[in-house]
Amino acid sequence: MQQYFIKGQASSPLTVTDKDTVKHMFSVMRLAENDQVVLVFDDGIKRLARVLDKEAHHFELVEDLPDQVELPLQVTIACGFPKGDKLEFISQKTTELGAHAIWAFPADWSVAKWDRKKLDKKAEKLSKIALGAAEQSKRNRLPQVSLFEKKDDFLARFGEFDRVLVAYEESAKGGETAALIKAVQGMKRGQKLLLIFGPEGGLSPAEIETFEQLGASCAGLGPRILRAETAPLYALSAVSVLCELK
Amino acid sequence: MQQYFIKGQASSPLTVTDKDTVKHMFSVMRLAENDQVVLVFDDGIKRLARVLDKEAHHFELVEDLPDQVELPLQVTIACGFPKGDKLEFISQKTTELGAHAIWAFPADWSVAKWDRKKLDKKAEKLSKIALGAAEQSKRNRLPQVSLFEKKDDFLARFGEFDRVLVAYEESAKGGETAALIKAVQGMKRGQKLLLIFGPEGGLSPAEIETFEQLGASCAGLGPRILRAETAPLYALSAVSVLCELK
Repeated sequence: MQQYFIKGQASSPLTVTDKDTVKHMFSVMRLAENDQVVLVFDDGIKRLARVLDKEAHHFELVEDLPDQVELPLQVTIACGFPKGDKLEFISQKTTELGAHAIWAFPADWSVAKWDRKKLDKKAEKLSKIALGAAEQSKRNRLPQVSLFEKKDDFLARFGEFDRVLVAYEESAKGGETAALIKAVQGMKRGQKLLLIFGPEGGLSPAEIETFEQLGASCAGLGPRILRAETAPLYALSAVSVLCELK
Repeated sequence: MQQYFIKGQASSPLTVTDKDTVKHMFSVMRLAENDQVVLVFDDGIKRLARVLDKEAHHFELVEDLPDQVELPLQVTIACGFPKGDKLEFISQKTTELGAHAIWAFPADWSVAKWDRKKLDKKAEKLSKIALGAAEQSKRNRLPQVSLFEKKDDFLARFGEFDRVLVAYEESAKGGETAALIKAVQGMKRGQKLLLIFGPEGGLSPAEIETFEQLGASCAGLGPRILRAETAPLYALSAVSVLCELK
């Protein structure tokens, strides 16, 4: 059944006002009176809803649904600005794979240089992509997108997390292959994990040192070299395998 | 260091003859005498090689390298023909993630209908994508691409595998969430695993039944709905996490 995220708290009856949502509901899906959809409000509970009036966009909430598909850990991924439209790809795929939030920051070796105006525009686009992916993959929560103009603003957020891991291929070479597993298995349901990924050229040694001074530890993602946009997918899949497939 | 796959057995000195490889080596990378690259022959061993003559494309093999990055299991992924250029995406990403072979077949609910001519052309394109991705991710083996025109020809290959798993979201709903982990953990190094994925609309019940009659079992990939092109990435990451991150 089609699912939509609705900003705010649940109430019944309710009027859907977001233009894009209304367009998809009544122009694309051609919902009619008594048709049912799933609405997800800010509390993350899925609710079955029924169209009361298709002209006025009125709905009635029918019942709460037990469906809960969020990862047991709140995983925020943070990528050094990659080239081109890789963040678009990352936003879609990491939303499917359960990311709680999608961040990006200007890494030392980022080729892309984006100013505030460009970042605002890009964040808006990425948020729409995440919304579409979250609806399609039936998420309970919509990942929030944040693009940092200054790395310091990104670093200032480390304190919000219970654990910070940096994906770093040299970790695997050093023989420490199980860091990701150990970190994830050491966390409790609901805790917050920040996973950091470099841009195409990787993270600089100075950057790694800064992250470590702020409490981060390095973790390898297996022996193969993964592209900048593939590493976050591997890491989120790993969290799912370790927390959900049992 | 730049890596190239060379068809055939290792010999020294040797002449590189493949046009695309020669072009990349001497026109794109502008290799000169004494420059070094890594060459990987059919035996999967990486060898350091040195340019002897850039006009004649002659190389001398310097030494074997111990680098081995293949998954401990030989994982073949088989996708029901997906729409558009999703197979291109799948070929690139599953190569990075360690696939041994990349197959696709006409599933009951595949929207794409491709004839032999189209399939041959597509297979050639996918092979090139896999080659590029294998070189970039420093693989020891180049994944072979096979596109089946008839589903029966695909089914006839099941006997080659030690284990066949079907990614099926209903498995997760049925409470059997650990099937993938159990299957992978029950396999020994070098064994062959076939992982089957549906197209956008999923696999048909009749198809699932046929696969099961041929010895396949179903496995869920977590609680979120993954797109056709995302599921293989999750599954390969899972195999890596279970076999390599310890």
